[in-house]
Formats: sequence, C-alpha cells, structure tokens
Amino acid sequence: MLVVGELINGTRKSVKEAVINHDEQFIKELAKQQAEAGANYIDVNVATGHGDKEPSDMEWAVKLIEQVTDIPLAIDSSSQEAMEVGLKTCSKQTPLLNSVSAEPGRLKPFLDLAEKYQTPAVALPIKDSGIPPSAEERLDVCKLITEEAAKRNIAPERLYFDPLVLPLGVDSTNPSVTINTIRMVKEEISGAKTLVGLSNVSYGLPNRKLLNQIFMALCIQAGLDAALLNPTDRSTMGVLKATEALIGTDQMCINYLKAYRQGLLKD
Amino acid sequence: MLVVGELINGTRKSVKEAVINHDEQFIKELAKQQAEAGANYIDVNVATGHGDKEPSDMEWAVKLIEQVTDIPLAIDSSSQEAMEVGLKTCSKQTPLLNSVSAEPGRLKPFLDLAEKYQTPAVALPIKDSGIPPSAEERLDVCKLITEEAAKRNIAPERLYFDPLVLPLGVDSTNPSVTINTIRMVKEEISGAKTLVGLSNVSYGLPNRKLLNQIFMALCIQAGLDAALLNPTDRSTMGVLKATEALIGTDQMCINYLKAYRQGLLKD
Repeated sequence: MLVVGELINGTRKSVKEAVINHDEQFIKELAKQQAEAGANYIDVNVATGHGDKEPSDMEWAVKLIEQVTDIPLAIDSSSQEAMEVGLKTCSKQTPLLNSVSAEPGRLKPFLDLAEKYQTPAVALPIKDSGIPPSAEERLDVCKLITEEAAKRNIAPERLYFDPLVLPLGVDSTNPSVTINTIRMVKEEISGAKTLVGLSNVSYGLPNRKLLNQIFMALCIQAGLDAALLNPTDRSTMGVLKATEALIGTDQMCINYLKAYRQGLLKD
Repeated sequence: MLVVGELINGTRKSVKEAVINHDEQFIKELAKQQAEAGANYIDVNVATGHGDKEPSDMEWAVKLIEQVTDIPLAIDSSSQEAMEVGLKTCSKQTPLLNSVSAEPGRLKPFLDLAEKYQTPAVALPIKDSGIPPSAEERLDVCKLITEEAAKRNIAPERLYFDPLVLPLGVDSTNPSVTINTIRMVKEEISGAKTLVGLSNVSYGLPNRKLLNQIFMALCIQAGLDAALLNPTDRSTMGVLKATEALIGTDQMCINYLKAYRQGLLKD
C-alpha cells in the first residue's frame, strides 16, 4: 500500500506557523523524516487562511522539499491557482493532484490540471448537495468523475478515489459506509484505485490511534491502495506491515520481517 | 463477539504442572481472572499427556472452576471419555463442546454427546485426509457436519465452525483461507456461527501479538462470532472493542467507551 505522509499540513498549528514565518528548517525536517520513515508521497498543504499567499507559499514549500528528498509530492489544495503553481514547480517526479471533487465549478478545472500536467489525481465523491450518505451513492459520483476524466484521456488507473471518512462517534455506520465504498469502487470501476485519510474516523472518541489503526487494517482488507497517515509513527507502520502480511500481499512476509529488523514493530 | 478464555490449557507448561499436581489455587485463579476480564466462556483443557488421567482431571477442574465463577465452560478434549465426564460434571450452565471434527470415528460419537447433553459444539472441517487446503473444501466439510448434526436435531445455530488457522509464516495465503472460510460459512450455512483460535497464525514469526490482534480484526470484519483468546490481555481486548465499534455492531460506541473508562484501551 502507498503511504502518503500527512505531516506537512497547514491545519496543524506548528506547520501553519512555519509556513507563515517561512521556517525552512522546520518544513525540510518534516519532509526528511517522512521520507526516511518510508513514505511513498509527501503531502504538501500550505493553506494558512491567508488565501492570497497560498500560491507563493506552495512554490516555496515545493522547492524546499525537493532540496531534501526525491520522493514524489502530493500537491494538496482547494485553490486552483495554488494547485497549478505546485504542479508546475515540481521538477523531480510526477506529483499527485490532491484533490478533485464533483462539486460544480471544481471537477472540470481540476481535471483539466490533471490532464495538462499528466498527473494522477485523488478524487472525492462530494456533490453540490454535500457528501452522499450511502456507499452506493458515493460510487455513483465516482463513476461520474471517471466519465469526466475519460474525456481528457485520464484512465481510471490514474484516479485515486477517496471514499470519505466521517466520524464513528457521530454515527456507528459511518466506517462501514467508507469500507463498503472502497470495496465497491474496486469491484465496479476497473483499474481505479482508492485512498483514505484515516484520522477523521476517530474524531471525538478516546484512544484515537487505536481506532485509526484498526480502521486502516479493515480498509486494507477491503482493497485500499493508499492512505494519508503519519509514517513516522512506528506502531501505525507496524499495523500496516502486519495487515499486508495477513492479507497475503507481502509474499513470504519479507516486508514484515524487514520492518521487524528495523525495529518498526512492537507488540 | 464471544470471548472464550484460552488460558486453562494443558499444552501450557504452568497449567500442565498445576493439573498434574492438582494445584487448586492456580486453576481457580486463572478461571477468576478470565471471568473478571470479560470472558463469555472459560475453556477447560486438562490434557497433560497422561491420557488415562484426563477424565478424572477434567472432573476435578470443572468442579473447581464452578466454585469460583458462574460463566459457562468450554469442555475441550480430544478424548470422548474426558469430554463426557466434563459435560456431565457441569452443573451451572450449559457448556460448549470443543471440539468435533469430521474425521472417521470422531464425528458421530462427539455429535452424539452434543445431542445427549443438548450443548452447542465447536466443529472443525478436518477430514481423514487432513486439513483441506482451500476455503471451498473446508466449507464442504462444514456442510457435511451440518447434515450429520441435523440428523440429531442439532440446528446450525448450535454449531460454531472453526475455519482452522494455519501459520502465515509457512504460507502467505493461509490467513486468507481462514478469513474466506469464515465469510463463506456465514453466507452459505444459514444460522451457523464461527469461532477461531487466533494464535496459530503468528507461529514462528516475531511480534506475534501484533499479528494475532490484526488477524482478529480482519476475522471479525469477515463475520467471526467467537474467538479463543487471552481475555486478561488488555491490548487484545482493546482491539476487539475498537473493531466492534468500527464495524457498527457496538451501537453508539457504548462498549468501546465503557472499555475506555475501565482502562482497557491503550494507544
């Protein structure tokens, strides 16, 4: 499974301050740590609430991060302008566009960017009326996005559908809707991939890490291809390796045993 | 999910010694600890390698355990005689017969016991030729056992099929076969239940507890009804509660929050 390192995100207070103050060392260190811990992508979200600065902050952050690592970046913004600056600035590897939603005014311009920069894209089944409550309805929106992408020759293989994670504490059926959406996207949209941001599931409940980790295991069993998570958290990476071994995608437990030798696992 | 406390088992050195020496305090303490930790059944396996003593040891152990707890017992033996003594000795609650396999010479006499004592029974899809390699073949044996049970008016609701757990370290596909067997039994034998002994999955690998816990979560998602486990292990019980909350069987997270208040959960 692909790990998208989630730590560089402007909603985190320390990151917001580092972006506002252009603290190069702080951002570089977060990128390096995540790369060394085994991230496959590094998410870059520099939204600080100062919208007009987001495009220039994005350019600053991408250039900085590319100084310390060769792994590809996930350009994470709801601003079309900041997104395009980010995609344009990436000079080492093809980035991931994070994210596209099916809301009016958002789907087409963001897919145009994915076409122009030949990137894969994370796609969210959000409509003008909000987040559909059922897995069936979320799947329908994913199919719509797939059709719109096909018009730009963006194959399903380049789409990572995010089935959306709502808090368990609000409604006990929320995690099942996410898990069922993953399963249905994998079954019904040939070639399409799935990605989740895990941590929302535990919002408002105690022992959040435990819930996030077990939720990750259940999502992987349902066919999850990628997750936004903290790769420097050893126990989360341990659960990831254990799950991959148990579902049979880690032949001969090679990665599990490697993680053990690196001290990543703990009972 | 039902928790069958696994600690009183003659294959554990300390238990074997306690049985041989008739150490009442040791066995009582193990029973009490498991009951207090939330076990729904307490497994009683007193096989020590001295076959002729097993029936009298079983009678001794059942009487002892019933002195300290009211929860039902799982009478666990491969000896028909020890099994019957155990079932007959239980005076408080209907015990669980653990276990019946489809091997010749074993299926019918053990089902006769389940009929005579009106107990539920754990049933293993093992044939004369051994453990079938695929989930489909294991399901076929489960269907055979169901038919044989029906002749004695033992409904599928009284059968707990153990899909058998072979070590991941021997073959990366082993856990998937178990998980698929659980799913298929639940789908294809209406009313039948499933039970696993978790720990075999991690045999020979490091960080066994991590593998056992994640395997449990994946089995619960597949429909598992009961597991043999150590209920005094707080982190295992925490994973169990987290999984039930995430699959939506713990309405409003009531049991999860109760476990939190009891200090059972840890990040």
